[in-house]
Amino acid sequence: MLAESIRKQLRQIVGDTWFKDDPEALVTHSYDATPMVQSMPDGVIYPSTREEVAAILKLANEHRIPIVGRGAGSNLCGGTVAVEGGIVMVMNRMNRLIEIDQDNLTATFQPGLNTKEFHLAVEALGLFYPPDPSSMVVSTLGGNIMECAGGLRGLKYGTTKDYVIGLEAVLPSGEVIRTGGKLYKDVAGYDLTKLLVGSEGTLAIITEATVKLTPAPKYKKTMLAMYEDIYAAARTVSAIIGHQIIPATLEFIDNPTLRVVEAFNKIGLPLNMEAVLLIEQDGSDMSAVEQDIEAITRICLEQGAAEVKIAGSTQEAEKLMMARRSALSTLARIRPTTILEDATVPRSKIADMVIEINRIAKKYDVQICTFGHAGDGNLHPTCTTDARDHDEIHRVEQAFEEIFDAAIRMGGTITGEHGVGMMKAPYLEWKVGAAGIELMKGIKRAFDPNNIMNPGKIFAKESRKRLVVQR
Amino acid sequence: MLAESIRKQLRQIVGDTWFKDDPEALVTHSYDATPMVQSMPDGVIYPSTREEVAAILKLANEHRIPIVGRGAGSNLCGGTVAVEGGIVMVMNRMNRLIEIDQDNLTATFQPGLNTKEFHLAVEALGLFYPPDPSSMVVSTLGGNIMECAGGLRGLKYGTTKDYVIGLEAVLPSGEVIRTGGKLYKDVAGYDLTKLLVGSEGTLAIITEATVKLTPAPKYKKTMLAMYEDIYAAARTVSAIIGHQIIPATLEFIDNPTLRVVEAFNKIGLPLNMEAVLLIEQDGSDMSAVEQDIEAITRICLEQGAAEVKIAGSTQEAEKLMMARRSALSTLARIRPTTILEDATVPRSKIADMVIEINRIAKKYDVQICTFGHAGDGNLHPTCTTDARDHDEIHRVEQAFEEIFDAAIRMGGTITGEHGVGMMKAPYLEWKVGAAGIELMKGIKRAFDPNNIMNPGKIFAKESRKRLVVQR
Repeated sequence: MLAESIRKQLRQIVGDTWFKDDPEALVTHSYDATPMVQSMPDGVIYPSTREEVAAILKLANEHRIPIVGRGAGSNLCGGTVAVEGGIVMVMNRMNRLIEIDQDNLTATFQPGLNTKEFHLAVEALGLFYPPDPSSMVVSTLGGNIMECAGGLRGLKYGTTKDYVIGLEAVLPSGEVIRTGGKLYKDVAGYDLTKLLVGSEGTLAIITEATVKLTPAPKYKKTMLAMYEDIYAAARTVSAIIGHQIIPATLEFIDNPTLRVVEAFNKIGLPLNMEAVLLIEQDGSDMSAVEQDIEAITRICLEQGAAEVKIAGSTQEAEKLMMARRSALSTLARIRPTTILEDATVPRSKIADMVIEINRIAKKYDVQICTFGHAGDGNLHPTCTTDARDHDEIHRVEQAFEEIFDAAIRMGGTITGEHGVGMMKAPYLEWKVGAAGIELMKGIKRAFDPNNIMNPGKIFAKESRKRLVVQR
Repeated sequence: MLAESIRKQLRQIVGDTWFKDDPEALVTHSYDATPMVQSMPDGVIYPSTREEVAAILKLANEHRIPIVGRGAGSNLCGGTVAVEGGIVMVMNRMNRLIEIDQDNLTATFQPGLNTKEFHLAVEALGLFYPPDPSSMVVSTLGGNIMECAGGLRGLKYGTTKDYVIGLEAVLPSGEVIRTGGKLYKDVAGYDLTKLLVGSEGTLAIITEATVKLTPAPKYKKTMLAMYEDIYAAARTVSAIIGHQIIPATLEFIDNPTLRVVEAFNKIGLPLNMEAVLLIEQDGSDMSAVEQDIEAITRICLEQGAAEVKIAGSTQEAEKLMMARRSALSTLARIRPTTILEDATVPRSKIADMVIEINRIAKKYDVQICTFGHAGDGNLHPTCTTDARDHDEIHRVEQAFEEIFDAAIRMGGTITGEHGVGMMKAPYLEWKVGAAGIELMKGIKRAFDPNNIMNPGKIFAKESRKRLVVQR
């Protein structure tokens, strides 16, 4: 509960309309897209300028009030849940596309800009901003930057981190820093830009960002490879990469996912198949794209695909991609609670990982569908369950713990693109070690000595014991 | 001067042969490729394993002895000069190429591995590691990582930072951390990998690194555009990018540089021209490469090129590239001291920057040749001078200060790829601000509380006053 004097000052900073602490506003901002986590903030604020952000942070810092930055709240790690109370700072009024600089191939915007809207503006100029999280219709670029969002084009084009080259950010003290710029090379001191990307609101609030753009690839071909053997599909992933072909998209979808997606989208997906690979190649030259698609087709068949289909039209290709993007929202229709995980392994281990996931699901008697960005090793094993069934939820947790452990044993990580937030915090030590956590806490202290920036995220009060035998 | 007990313990760690403190070893390691800086270390040590590195750091940390990590010493920022004494740790015994993983398209190596040797090993498998600093024949990959080396292919392929995805590093405490892995996506906590890249030996000593590889582009074309008007050449750079063409290489060479390079290489460079652009395009498809080269040719001529020549053979192309790579070493033949600078601007500002450099050189009556990676805004204005002429050196310093200031005013930075080291430390605040420096010092403390890791680098005792009027 905020003191009346604080509320008064907050209202003075943003105007009466833009600070809210009525029950509706608090409840609406007590959760995000993450299942099973909720916590009431003490207030919700909507700044419209860098100066307002700075004034709010300065005040919060003086009074040790937690600040939880928020874009669209579409994250899946509990990243914007005010777990220690405080003020949720919603950035959606700062949503201006400031500039697309065609001479430098950069764009500069405020954090509240919608990702899809930005894509369309960029593409209208024949340019390309590759990061495409499945949530892009609702997500904001600021949220993408704070979580280092990935997407379906990661294997060829990288993730948000690879595109952000300049930031303006407000520190808890209210000081404003500017990092990088419209620069493709900058080694002036430690790379604060890349450090802030993926920092999950725990270090600073960004108020402006500059990203690299690239020329749009002119041609694109989409194909679907269908498998009666799920492991043959998984093995195909490393076979394609092993042949030195990097598709723009290389998605894996297992049969349970396929069934749900088909029921919702009705586009004729092959329900008799155990798994499909959805593959897209793009490029500046049609014949090069076609050569790759031919080579990939050959590799799929060699690895045991029952059938390979190449999309005959843009419409058909888009339908396939839309179907894949709808996987999470359609899976959410099966049972009351959907938990989407994000363990990531070296891409040569995709087949081993699929085997492990299915073994673990059976062991704990839970329902796990698996789909995801196989081409960069980033699978999303998704559990459809019911939060009200405590016994089942306990088994789900055990299953995911064992999945994280398996990922790490294969040289992987606990999260490829969703972030640590609250959900993975107890497991972070498994990946980065106690010394890694200590370094990260030291970095956090350098930015935020009073721990007001999104407290309770990334760092757990206690790490989970790793029950499974380590290497 | 190290105490006898310390020297004894160091000898016990690495064996008698691999610790040296005779005058020859100390003098040899008192300087690097940077002109006009020298400082005697107290000892030189050559570890051969991670365990030896850890034992040395632990001992040094207990006794507060500076540790200066060193690869080939080819850096240009005074990065490996033991400015506060202590021990130079030469990594060249740890030079093993551990693995090229063709399924995951990654390579793992020890830091002492020679860059060119690594390139050849990778290329023999049809793969590609793009970062190509001009020093690559002598430089080590560990040095490249610590300085975040760039090169001639930065505009299309990025720099070292874009390729390093996993590190093993020893902290001053002797603890070993592992970051990232063979992973294209990993958002488990703050990105320590990217933070360590470019950290100039001030945070930790890396003992192993994993980098991304890409399929090698199959085709390459090289061309030379010649200009009687230097600014027309500079303007062409942004015109090419503005047409959404990203060449693999886009180098600017002015007439004075051209003359020196020709005198040494004798390959028929056009000495009557004010500037040339050396342009290379590559790709997986010959016709796409040819289309780009045709479009670039048209743009060059539109922008006022007097002549455009396309290399008729691989040999001819390689001669041109070799000539460019030899620019620094050949310029070093003109006068006793050569100071190569590294200011970087948004690429649309290249023409303005060339105008500024020439104006400033005239103002201070110093000789500055300019060449560099124009395509990514990274010019190397190079001053040929004489360290013994104090009056001239003073004017050179003033000229470079004004160049840094101009770069920052244009939205640029004080160093694009050479690092801060000793040379740029007094200017770092101009780029990152006082708040930025404080954050970086906080990060430094988190890794190295006793300030033993390459002390005196990145952070200056005192920042230079910025004399020129700020925006």
